[in-house]
Amino acid sequence: MSLREEALKIHKNHQGKLEVKAKFPITDARELSLAYSPGVAEPCREIYGDREKVYDYTMKGNTVAVVSNGTAVLGLGNIGADAALPVMEGKAVLFKSFAGVDAFPVCLNTTDAEQIVQTVKLLEPTFGGINLEDIGAPDCFIIEERLKRELEIPVFHDDQHGTAIVTVAGLLNALKIVGKSITEIKIVVNGAGAAGTAIVKLLYHYGVRNLIMCDSKGAIFAGRPYGMNEMKEEVANITNPEKMEGPLEEMMKGADVFIGVSVAGALTKEMIRTMNKNPIIFAMANPTPEIMPEDAIDAGAKVVGTGRSDYQNQVNNVLAFPGIFRGALDVRATQINEEMKIAAVEAIASLIKEEELSPNYVIPAPFDPRVAPAVAAAVAKAAMETGVARIHLNPEDVAKKTRQLAAII
Amino acid sequence: MSLREEALKIHKNHQGKLEVKAKFPITDARELSLAYSPGVAEPCREIYGDREKVYDYTMKGNTVAVVSNGTAVLGLGNIGADAALPVMEGKAVLFKSFAGVDAFPVCLNTTDAEQIVQTVKLLEPTFGGINLEDIGAPDCFIIEERLKRELEIPVFHDDQHGTAIVTVAGLLNALKIVGKSITEIKIVVNGAGAAGTAIVKLLYHYGVRNLIMCDSKGAIFAGRPYGMNEMKEEVANITNPEKMEGPLEEMMKGADVFIGVSVAGALTKEMIRTMNKNPIIFAMANPTPEIMPEDAIDAGAKVVGTGRSDYQNQVNNVLAFPGIFRGALDVRATQINEEMKIAAVEAIASLIKEEELSPNYVIPAPFDPRVAPAVAAAVAKAAMETGVARIHLNPEDVAKKTRQLAAII
Repeated sequence: MSLREEALKIHKNHQGKLEVKAKFPITDARELSLAYSPGVAEPCREIYGDREKVYDYTMKGNTVAVVSNGTAVLGLGNIGADAALPVMEGKAVLFKSFAGVDAFPVCLNTTDAEQIVQTVKLLEPTFGGINLEDIGAPDCFIIEERLKRELEIPVFHDDQHGTAIVTVAGLLNALKIVGKSITEIKIVVNGAGAAGTAIVKLLYHYGVRNLIMCDSKGAIFAGRPYGMNEMKEEVANITNPEKMEGPLEEMMKGADVFIGVSVAGALTKEMIRTMNKNPIIFAMANPTPEIMPEDAIDAGAKVVGTGRSDYQNQVNNVLAFPGIFRGALDVRATQINEEMKIAAVEAIASLIKEEELSPNYVIPAPFDPRVAPAVAAAVAKAAMETGVARIHLNPEDVAKKTRQLAAII
Repeated sequence: MSLREEALKIHKNHQGKLEVKAKFPITDARELSLAYSPGVAEPCREIYGDREKVYDYTMKGNTVAVVSNGTAVLGLGNIGADAALPVMEGKAVLFKSFAGVDAFPVCLNTTDAEQIVQTVKLLEPTFGGINLEDIGAPDCFIIEERLKRELEIPVFHDDQHGTAIVTVAGLLNALKIVGKSITEIKIVVNGAGAAGTAIVKLLYHYGVRNLIMCDSKGAIFAGRPYGMNEMKEEVANITNPEKMEGPLEEMMKGADVFIGVSVAGALTKEMIRTMNKNPIIFAMANPTPEIMPEDAIDAGAKVVGTGRSDYQNQVNNVLAFPGIFRGALDVRATQINEEMKIAAVEAIASLIKEEELSPNYVIPAPFDPRVAPAVAAAVAKAAMETGVARIHLNPEDVAKKTRQLAAII
């Protein structure tokens, strides 16, 4: 059976992938009187008296909304909220399988950013966190920014930050192999969507200054008179200080690192041959990378990562978001701040010991069971240290809980 | 341990009552490629090509939103959306336990009816049905009416129709005991909220014409110059044709049936003594009825029902809503129309055979496992017969499926 046939069959046989389950059964009058009327009035009263107790007596503290309007789904583009539902269910399955987070799809039938903001704000009581997913740029930036400001629970756009965190984790390890310092290298990021933008911002945070982002029109620079938008202007302010103009091909000369979040075939062997020695290539276009790993190696690449499961060094968001939300939820963080993201980067990267590092192993495998517990503990710790945690826990306990809740082993 | 202590403990120990569960696990790369990228693109494409297929490949067809803003929660009143969450979780547990429906709480942080309407409309892609819950009058009427018109999935305000359906089912059986015809009796409904209004409408549909509704200001009649609102005007148009004015006490004279959805102590023994012979009393104020059953019997009542689990003839919505949604979802009904509600009434009433009927047994017990399958089958059949079903099934198969999915036995 082909992957297509099997995927359709498994979805149809189960009528989707998620169910809602009672944590304890109601099968007689006594149980009914505890879980529902009249007993249920007691936790209601407690929460009414002290709003924070909603975390004690309800599902909120372990529940994340996976919010999408279906405008930028996988490589399929704007397919709408209902056609996006299989992806959001899948995401919820990953949240649960990797870190025991109860996630629920919220597919919103609108392309209006303001409506999405308002809707998610109204939904806040049920959820302990918001994961934005597959919402097209520039709306995804606007929505995330607004919600981060206006909600008291963590908001995280995984297409941006999940990808950025895992990419930078892999890059840190790749740089150890080639013996270069992150602050002294030249990086070209190709693709100016959600992921590319977040990668650039995170790299800047790491001290990278020789940093150029390209879109389909070539290098982005401050004041570029064509093909700009608000987000690209923002990127331009922290990249390309010499305001170089030209196609990707030109920018690649002398670069140490290429990071692609663009389209198949965007990078050629010829371009790699013009890079600095021991070039590092993260070619993450899906399903076909900017250049196939064998071609990149052939052209001299030292380390290659892609989004694909059939090659080494898979940049897979599943390494980040389950543990990030696990850690944030456990300490009731009010947000996922930069320090928490960086804690996740370091936790992922440091799982591979120096002596284990190799060009084929700079990123842990998606099903490495150490990842989510390590990320959760690091993120919880960073939340507590930066004052955004509403309760304090031992990070080791967070890791332990994550191990217990995860279904993958 | 008191009920209060035990209720708080069970909620806290489990951190609420619901979890989101994967229908099949993801523990390796192959499963990941089927349930998530790249395999998940296949059901997405199918749904994009034919929107109806969202019912085949996703959770939508078995998933109901339990929507509340927490403005009229149990007897607690307007406690807000977060304090209402335990009730909505409990409702979802009942949906699942009694009929295998996956229900999810949607607690909305607003008291604006228009915002609720807009939000639920945007949420439609994820859900196969909408159960409105504990939303104060008159907003509950406005919201239900708008959503019924503007959505293509069933919308049901359980506080109105669930209560009305079970009450009328009990009344039909009670009338068999006293040998009266529903079209020839006088009924007084005390309480002009959501439940009372729905009961009056359903009784009118059953041919009751000698029907009076009272509120705290006494009998409602068309053009009453005090204490009216839009919904009461509507009620006035189908009740109290002689426009009688006066307190409940006056209206009770010669009545055959009292239905209370008001407050503890609203009905007295003296009032019952002025009723027609073999009076029927449904005193459903929670937790303390309008009159205690022993007092009602003492004053001459022939059949007494309440909302309480510690007395016979419990009017419990759980007899209605799980089966109603089960039947509506299974045939992909676009709405829950009057015929479907009446089918539910008849299904509930007819579960008690003539020879089993007694003053203490006019309503099936909440955990009678025959109820949800019978209601589901009858509702599905009525949906098909009235042309609101998008697929056709054998009602017997609907009953069978309900029996298989229900956790109570």
